[in-house]
Amino acid sequence: MFKKLTKELLDKFFSGDIITASRLMTRLENGDPSVWPIMREISLHTGKAYVVGITGPPGAGKSTITDKLIQLFRKNQYTLGVICVDPSSPFTGGAFLGDRIRMTQAIGDEGVFVRSLANRGELGGLAPRAKEIVQILDAFGKDVIIIETVGAGQVEADIINIADTTVVVTVPGLGDRMQALKAGIMEIADLFVINKADRQGAQDAVRDINMMLDWLPEGRWRPQVLLATANLNQGMQEVYDAILAHRDKLIKTDKWRERRYERNRSHCFAITEQAVISYIHQKTEEVAELKELIAKVCEGEVDPYSGAEKLIQKLFASADILKLS
Amino acid sequence: MFKKLTKELLDKFFSGDIITASRLMTRLENGDPSVWPIMREISLHTGKAYVVGITGPPGAGKSTITDKLIQLFRKNQYTLGVICVDPSSPFTGGAFLGDRIRMTQAIGDEGVFVRSLANRGELGGLAPRAKEIVQILDAFGKDVIIIETVGAGQVEADIINIADTTVVVTVPGLGDRMQALKAGIMEIADLFVINKADRQGAQDAVRDINMMLDWLPEGRWRPQVLLATANLNQGMQEVYDAILAHRDKLIKTDKWRERRYERNRSHCFAITEQAVISYIHQKTEEVAELKELIAKVCEGEVDPYSGAEKLIQKLFASADILKLS
Repeated sequence: MFKKLTKELLDKFFSGDIITASRLMTRLENGDPSVWPIMREISLHTGKAYVVGITGPPGAGKSTITDKLIQLFRKNQYTLGVICVDPSSPFTGGAFLGDRIRMTQAIGDEGVFVRSLANRGELGGLAPRAKEIVQILDAFGKDVIIIETVGAGQVEADIINIADTTVVVTVPGLGDRMQALKAGIMEIADLFVINKADRQGAQDAVRDINMMLDWLPEGRWRPQVLLATANLNQGMQEVYDAILAHRDKLIKTDKWRERRYERNRSHCFAITEQAVISYIHQKTEEVAELKELIAKVCEGEVDPYSGAEKLIQKLFASADILKLS
Repeated sequence: MFKKLTKELLDKFFSGDIITASRLMTRLENGDPSVWPIMREISLHTGKAYVVGITGPPGAGKSTITDKLIQLFRKNQYTLGVICVDPSSPFTGGAFLGDRIRMTQAIGDEGVFVRSLANRGELGGLAPRAKEIVQILDAFGKDVIIIETVGAGQVEADIINIADTTVVVTVPGLGDRMQALKAGIMEIADLFVINKADRQGAQDAVRDINMMLDWLPEGRWRPQVLLATANLNQGMQEVYDAILAHRDKLIKTDKWRERRYERNRSHCFAITEQAVISYIHQKTEEVAELKELIAKVCEGEVDPYSGAEKLIQKLFASADILKLS
């Protein structure tokens, strides 16, 4: 019975049924483990899609750039999946939703599948979920998947790890903050776009970034630094061309395969960790002995370290962390 | 031998040796499990400190407010621990460090212990680490611990969970974004401070927040909404008084105990999860069979779901997830 349902669902999915794909994403977001056998089948059909990450500080205009890129990819007959990630809610939640409304011009086009991922405080975080949605969109046959992250923290860095090409968007006049770019962003950027280039200081920003890039180790891909004013549609063709140029370079240098390896690896660890964490929480709610232990930790009768030790001893003495049918 | 060293270290710690406390924090940050027996002892001496969380969107002036609060607490003979958390690097790292330099007036005062926590991409994230540092500062005898988080994402929400009193700092003119505050912030705020109150729109901000607060469920503590201009030292005495008023209220209503319960609980889970995740990564590097499995997952020969399943079967069949001496 279960096998039959799975087969039906997979047939629908691979025939391109959008509702089936959406429901699958929702079940994954809800942490429903019954989708694992389905995801296992789906993951056998992945590795073809080209994944572009768009990141940068709040207010840099990432959504507008994403919008324009969608139009350019569509003009060139690519089908698209778009994932909008907002790990920084509650504070930026409002602005984010506003931005999304602008993107509605993309909705209604069957070649574009848009999915938002907001943080609802789940265990395990957004990065594993984003990876799963990439897998689904990839197997669903989308040629290009754009992941846009609002904000710029560790979560975004984890997510952007999935991308083949990472575009870092910034704006003129970030001043001091540019210094900070040095730290983490130099390693992940494949292309810099200075948006709102009609503002004062655009040339200074180009120079600043180029100066930082001079510190890159030899042999490393040197990201281009482009100027754009996305809301006036200026410079976007150049951004698009630079993205595709990076893809071509990737494919030639075997980096393409390397990134797929890393994607599989981190996906496997994410699933494993998620399962184990869920198991820990579930058991401490179900098993009376563990419930009592946690109560004693809360009361301060047992210190958190001894509590953790006992918890681990009790939980992992047997091998039933998860039982899949 | 080990026991003797532990005892010596603990003696030094409880006699107030700052270097011992700092080293302990560093060992925890490095994920050194040999500190567990020490932390176990230390955690028996916690629960006395009063923890104040300062959070809010970037640019709201949280550091200046923290600075002024440090001065007021010191004036009233409280000893202080200050934890500055920056989960949103790389992008805001630079500004953050700049802010910290201003705080140097607090350094040099033996009654204030300042510790910065920046994200270095570790497994498990910043929240467990912040909890451990709170425990150390608490056992070290600090009366008040201020946790300041730069940025406003999920990580910060997890960290702010530790606080007895949470101060949300905002500024006039955030416009649309105020809407977003509704979502997550209403539940965590015990006090609102509208900083930079000399700017236009301060009264509008007070009104907006008060309107939102009208939606709070009955019986819930209604946060005060205060105006301040921290860099001119205006309104800070009122903020300080409101923080202490909230503490008094907490103690009277048993919430004090409730928050300590929750702190112990989440600390215990954090340690457990951290240990299990480290175990997973360590074993897959050490055990040839698991290394091969991961290699196959990378190559795409085994899908990530089957990989995760096998990993869990192999790892958790035996009970040696961690062995403490």
